[in-house]
Amino acid sequence: MCRWLAYSGEPIQLSKLILDTQNSLVAQSLNSPLGAETVNGDGFGVGWYPKDAVDGTPPAFFHSIEPAWHDENLREITHAIESPLFFAHVRAAAGPPIQQTNCHPFRHENWLFMHNGSLAGMNLVRRDLALAVAPEFYPLIRGTTDSEVLFYLALTLGLRDDPVAGMAAAIRKVEEVGHAHGVEFPMQGTVAVSDGAMVWAFRYSSQGRTRTLFHSIAMATLQEMYPEQARLRGFGKNARVIVSEPLSDLPGAFVEVPEATVAILEQGQYRHEPFLANAE
Amino acid sequence: MCRWLAYSGEPIQLSKLILDTQNSLVAQSLNSPLGAETVNGDGFGVGWYPKDAVDGTPPAFFHSIEPAWHDENLREITHAIESPLFFAHVRAAAGPPIQQTNCHPFRHENWLFMHNGSLAGMNLVRRDLALAVAPEFYPLIRGTTDSEVLFYLALTLGLRDDPVAGMAAAIRKVEEVGHAHGVEFPMQGTVAVSDGAMVWAFRYSSQGRTRTLFHSIAMATLQEMYPEQARLRGFGKNARVIVSEPLSDLPGAFVEVPEATVAILEQGQYRHEPFLANAE
Amino acid sequence: MCRWLAYSGEPIQLSKLILDTQNSLVAQSLNSPLGAETVNGDGFGVGWYPKDAVDGTPPAFFHSIEPAWHDENLREITHAIESPLFFAHVRAAAGPPIQQTNCHPFRHENWLFMHNGSLAGMNLVRRDLALAVAPEFYPLIRGTTDSEVLFYLALTLGLRDDPVAGMAAAIRKVEEVGHAHGVEFPMQGTVAVSDGAMVWAFRYSSQGRTRTLFHSIAMATLQEMYPEQARLRGFGKNARVIVSEPLSDLPGAFVEVPEATVAILEQGQYRHEPFLANAE
Amino acid sequence: MCRWLAYSGEPIQLSKLILDTQNSLVAQSLNSPLGAETVNGDGFGVGWYPKDAVDGTPPAFFHSIEPAWHDENLREITHAIESPLFFAHVRAAAGPPIQQTNCHPFRHENWLFMHNGSLAGMNLVRRDLALAVAPEFYPLIRGTTDSEVLFYLALTLGLRDDPVAGMAAAIRKVEEVGHAHGVEFPMQGTVAVSDGAMVWAFRYSSQGRTRTLFHSIAMATLQEMYPEQARLRGFGKNARVIVSEPLSDLPGAFVEVPEATVAILEQGQYRHEPFLANAE
Repeated sequence: MCRWLAYSGEPIQLSKLILDTQNSLVAQSLNSPLGAETVNGDGFGVGWYPKDAVDGTPPAFFHSIEPAWHDENLREITHAIESPLFFAHVRAAAGPPIQQTNCHPFRHENWLFMHNGSLAGMNLVRRDLALAVAPEFYPLIRGTTDSEVLFYLALTLGLRDDPVAGMAAAIRKVEEVGHAHGVEFPMQGTVAVSDGAMVWAFRYSSQGRTRTLFHSIAMATLQEMYPEQARLRGFGKNARVIVSEPLSDLPGAFVEVPEATVAILEQGQYRHEPFLANAE
Repeated sequence: MCRWLAYSGEPIQLSKLILDTQNSLVAQSLNSPLGAETVNGDGFGVGWYPKDAVDGTPPAFFHSIEPAWHDENLREITHAIESPLFFAHVRAAAGPPIQQTNCHPFRHENWLFMHNGSLAGMNLVRRDLALAVAPEFYPLIRGTTDSEVLFYLALTLGLRDDPVAGMAAAIRKVEEVGHAHGVEFPMQGTVAVSDGAMVWAFRYSSQGRTRTLFHSIAMATLQEMYPEQARLRGFGKNARVIVSEPLSDLPGAFVEVPEATVAILEQGQYRHEPFLANAE
Repeated sequence: MCRWLAYSGEPIQLSKLILDTQNSLVAQSLNSPLGAETVNGDGFGVGWYPKDAVDGTPPAFFHSIEPAWHDENLREITHAIESPLFFAHVRAAAGPPIQQTNCHPFRHENWLFMHNGSLAGMNLVRRDLALAVAPEFYPLIRGTTDSEVLFYLALTLGLRDDPVAGMAAAIRKVEEVGHAHGVEFPMQGTVAVSDGAMVWAFRYSSQGRTRTLFHSIAMATLQEMYPEQARLRGFGKNARVIVSEPLSDLPGAFVEVPEATVAILEQGQYRHEPFLANAE
Repeated sequence: MCRWLAYSGEPIQLSKLILDTQNSLVAQSLNSPLGAETVNGDGFGVGWYPKDAVDGTPPAFFHSIEPAWHDENLREITHAIESPLFFAHVRAAAGPPIQQTNCHPFRHENWLFMHNGSLAGMNLVRRDLALAVAPEFYPLIRGTTDSEVLFYLALTLGLRDDPVAGMAAAIRKVEEVGHAHGVEFPMQGTVAVSDGAMVWAFRYSSQGRTRTLFHSIAMATLQEMYPEQARLRGFGKNARVIVSEPLSDLPGAFVEVPEATVAILEQGQYRHEPFLANAE
């Protein structure tokens, strides 16, 4: 439904990935070759952790309902800001209204969250899922997307203590409630979560046919493979991205994250593990 | 928190009351002498029933988050459209985000609803009130205001069968839930409801100190009192408005609706009755 | 650069052509098969003459910078309004900012104007073209598009007295100024103009390779060809459209307007004539 | 017509002056005690030079047409960004449309410009003033305000070589053109200009009755006067502001800039000089 990217590494200008790459997120907003929708023109968001911030500092936001391709503030701000860890997201709305409160990423304290996909039969399950959100979180839900409910469900179920277990519990809850309402495949999508230090990216759907997800290979290797690519020299050795679809067509630069997997970025290292692998 | 007007009578251009009167709703958006806030610049909405429509036809909408005083579409549309029954509302947001889905009036089938005021302690009671909304209505809530929850609560509790009893039950529910969470005075405000034929306007607060509400006197009387007022000649004999504050300073033109009262417009006739009169 | 439609005939709901046809203007905003750009998401406008209006009544407007495909006001308003003559336009911006004042159609007194295409080398010629606009029109230019300058140039050069001669003189002026600045092919595009009674649609480019333009055949013929098409029965016998690209794929329903031609709708009749046919 | 502030000194978070002071610019947007208009809700802009930037680096922008008081991006961005020199502006539109291209400050290369006031009789003089802008600057005018024309006129007349002489020549040109069209008092307002190192603030009107302008006293003195004011300790010794009206009511903190004066901030020092003092 959407396209997103998560960056972790040496601080860079946000525009380097959001605007300046061959198949940048803004380019994808007009034309995303691998997207479920071609056009992702229903809002944009970027959330970034400050450079030199201490652990636990909340990230900042810029959300806009203008299509990303013509938003001048987006150009100004992504050029002006450097960050060691940021999320960016372009939206193709499947239903909930186009408004800033429905733009990803979402934030709670020092946590960021974004999602590409959907909870099937949302109108059937919305009420039961909202009830499953802890009362102290309930009034914090500001928009009306399924994605934000999923975030607060994961927070309710332990995301902050153990992101992988918290997301797993939230998705299992979505599946339980969905099945109870006759929804065959309740969960669809890729999800990114960060606490400001690490990034967790989940690829999972109840049907086992999830939206695409890719990670970049180690920057040192990439720079060795493509010594003539001047643009690559601007990135540090810890630079890594996880993305809905590759930001360029350099062969070998991006590798697909498997189905039913959580990918993890930590201090420049990428690894992944099975996640809810027993999806039917 | 806001300012509103409800018109019933012969079809007129919306602009006549929204733009062209001395203290029109748009004038009030910049400066409302009797408002809890002076500036009502956080969104605008108008809902109108079509001319010549059969009973049960849903009203149409125009919602905008631009301040009413500089919205060019508002000027164009209120000039272009004539209606025998319409609601208009300017918002001064007390909390929920400024977005079209939070603009009044709200609509369900052929019903319109708008509110000036607030449910106190909304963050404490939001979840319990949402749970009190019938499951079939729950997914229809599109915004995040207390007002829209009050509307769906009233629909749940019988608004369509008996508007006065339905609103009474909804407000009693708001008070019950509020008191259970330690809120002393849960309900505040004036509310307007229409089914396309009649208008019900409620003035009630748990504290017995409700935002102002006025109704216009019979147009024939008004025209007799002010024969030199050319502007008044443009209105038919059934023209009536109920408003947060008078639209002009013509002495005698507007009469205050008492506390704990429901005012009713029906085929050019105004009447009112006690409503929840035993408020402490 | 854009897509547009002009309707003349019995009064119809605007939504019938803007929203409800197979390849409606809103559908084209997301995906226009024949467009120079696929996505036309940079603003929307509709201008309509009122039903039952006397000659010379100015048209009304709705302009929005939200993409047409998710604009809720657009849906409400095009359903609520009926008109015997209206223009609608979706924009793919080539340069000038996305703002309501740059949305087509443009209006002057009872005249409407819209354009798909561009004046080449606009930054080179903008100043000289602005100087060619009569001083009394100059302060009326509200936006920053080349199209609006072309409109005021045509008004300066006699559009209101003779639309065909006025547009011809304006285009010749554009070509003269362009050539003086070394622009090889200064004019590109299709233009629609109306005074509320007739519609003139021009297809012309200095290079002789103009954006596409089509007109619908006579409604009676179309209804005879497709008696099973229930949707067609909703249109009166005078209903005609001129469009950037066909609104449906019914074979024979739409006919291309030739290069260097002005197409004219008058009281349900279509005709066309050569226009500036001696392009180099 | 508007309210503005210019800051120069040690890098600070923009929010410190824009949001957090007693009579901050955002507070003034809802209620400006000394303003020609009370409400300045017609758009907001901030322009800032980056921390650690080399001389000649262009400033960055954030422009928004939402009223400043409810703009969430404004809160996020002004908290996230630190700058040693920035301009901020809230607009009360006197005529030109509310759109981002009409939001101050304006930028050309490394220059910033903003204005509170107006050029009288703008519709009479617009064309002649636009013609007085050098052809190479003409296509760079992106909006439709009198203020932006004044900026490009000053650039045409030498602003970059000598800001005081350039502004003087531009204002004299405005007066000459105005008088030629029968405008008695063509120039009104306060103007701020910066090249990234210095700030020039002009207070001048043809009538000799100019909108208010104030500068803060030396921060060391202010901190000595108010040792108990914790908030003041957050500012460095070079911190200075020039503002349309005082940001607090601390007696002695703000001093009025006289009529027909240019105030200059340079490396923490304030000085002022007569400017066009022979205004009739």
